[in-house]
Amino acid sequence: MSARYLLPYAPDVIGGLPAGLDALVWDGDGPAPSDDALREVEFFCLPYLRHAVALPVIPHLPSLKVVQTLTAGMDDVLPHVPDGVLACSARGLHDASTAELAVTLILASLRGVPHFTRLQDQGRWSQEFHQSLADRTVLILGYGSIGRALAVRLEPFECEIVRVARSARPEERVHGVAELPDLLPSADVVVLLTPLTPESRHLVDAGFLSRMKDGALLVNVARGPVVDTAALLAELTAQRLRAALDVTDPEPLPADHPLWHAPGVLITPHVGGPSSAFLPRARRTLREQILRYENGEPLAAGR
Amino acid sequence: MSARYLLPYAPDVIGGLPAGLDALVWDGDGPAPSDDALREVEFFCLPYLRHAVALPVIPHLPSLKVVQTLTAGMDDVLPHVPDGVLACSARGLHDASTAELAVTLILASLRGVPHFTRLQDQGRWSQEFHQSLADRTVLILGYGSIGRALAVRLEPFECEIVRVARSARPEERVHGVAELPDLLPSADVVVLLTPLTPESRHLVDAGFLSRMKDGALLVNVARGPVVDTAALLAELTAQRLRAALDVTDPEPLPADHPLWHAPGVLITPHVGGPSSAFLPRARRTLREQILRYENGEPLAAGR
Repeated sequence: MSARYLLPYAPDVIGGLPAGLDALVWDGDGPAPSDDALREVEFFCLPYLRHAVALPVIPHLPSLKVVQTLTAGMDDVLPHVPDGVLACSARGLHDASTAELAVTLILASLRGVPHFTRLQDQGRWSQEFHQSLADRTVLILGYGSIGRALAVRLEPFECEIVRVARSARPEERVHGVAELPDLLPSADVVVLLTPLTPESRHLVDAGFLSRMKDGALLVNVARGPVVDTAALLAELTAQRLRAALDVTDPEPLPADHPLWHAPGVLITPHVGGPSSAFLPRARRTLREQILRYENGEPLAAGR
Repeated sequence: MSARYLLPYAPDVIGGLPAGLDALVWDGDGPAPSDDALREVEFFCLPYLRHAVALPVIPHLPSLKVVQTLTAGMDDVLPHVPDGVLACSARGLHDASTAELAVTLILASLRGVPHFTRLQDQGRWSQEFHQSLADRTVLILGYGSIGRALAVRLEPFECEIVRVARSARPEERVHGVAELPDLLPSADVVVLLTPLTPESRHLVDAGFLSRMKDGALLVNVARGPVVDTAALLAELTAQRLRAALDVTDPEPLPADHPLWHAPGVLITPHVGGPSSAFLPRARRTLREQILRYENGEPLAAGR
């Protein structure tokens, strides 16, 4: 009475799987299945947005071979994955939703949506010129799957796109991170899409920010700790830079944190992934990975 | 001491014009030039956002041959243009800025930016699922120059686009307006981009709105009177539809108008055109039209 799969959705919700797939369903609400039921679980898909209750289940899985996340980043997961167990991220799953949120944050900030929302609440009509995305230079820092999805969405907006990744890839017009100091001063918008690693933690520090041009917009849809919050707060308070942050450090942001009310900042509560785009793409990702596992093929995005 | 051109910018600001172009400069601030100075004016470019002071100048131009606007619509201008005088709109000038604002309003509304702005002002972090543009069906009503610019910008977002114009143009996948009743029920987002004409006034009435699906979003970046405000207000108040309006009827919206505080509405104060994208494109449009006029070539977008 154990099973090989522990999944957040029933096989018929995922769809396209072999009949009678040997799976337990647990979505992270309610208690986890008993140790006995978990004894033969080889493939564990962490329920989305439930890592806090799901990660402690891992030590109860003696047959574990694969931990599959439904997140793009694995920074919080990797420390919990035992040696010899493959950890797979959901690369590609969040491309549409997160790239779309990045465009949302850029456009809303430049065209003044938070400002006009506040005027609306006061019943005030005030026609003003704001910045357009057209004619701006957007630097994308972290050029993987989501970075590419963002560039594709930005291209028709008559803006310039500068791509930066850890290593230069000239065939894709991607600059290496070593060129950043020379590239930052010409960017009107800098979008962070780097995974959180020891190297990227506080990559955006006072020195990085000081090279950004006056009035430029920093957009973080990666992970909060990529940015040194105190350094950003100083630039915002001085009204030299603007920011749109879907992730923060600390996160969630406490009610009394000064970042909430800094001038020129738009904050959304980590909603790059959570949107109606999630479920259909999560089903597809999970279906593809399970079929690969069933067929003994290498899994995608493993490490 | 008269001139052939009356322009809102000096020729050297416009750039690329013949040396010594015979032009008077008046940007709508301060009094208009004297009747004597205006006696030989053939080509009058109305200063942008100054029609209220500029249109009364037209009767003082006995040599007038061309009225050039810097707006895309000419609904407010045409009644002031004498017979035999050509009126030219600024077709193309506002494509980038207005299409960009339409995408801004769609994304901000779907992804919850006004909602999250209000939570931010209260210091509240509340991760929630919102709608994505991905997987939605967007109906563009009015498929001219700006409609095409909007479609190009929407295409990478993994959404379905339905194009509707006065007449069907199958080669461009454009439906005719007669098909609207059948097309409306499947649209998640309806974007209005029709010029204001006697036929389009109150095109979006109670019957039109009743065919839109529950929870759908109406985006107006055209002209306020294309929508019957009372009918829209009823649907918003019932929380059956949502709206994002850059134009309203009346406009400007009075401080005590109930539309300001209707549920599910985002209002921006007619900023589709006014953005940093305006000036470089206005200079280009005006340069091209003046060069055509100087060379005796037909002007663009005249009627």
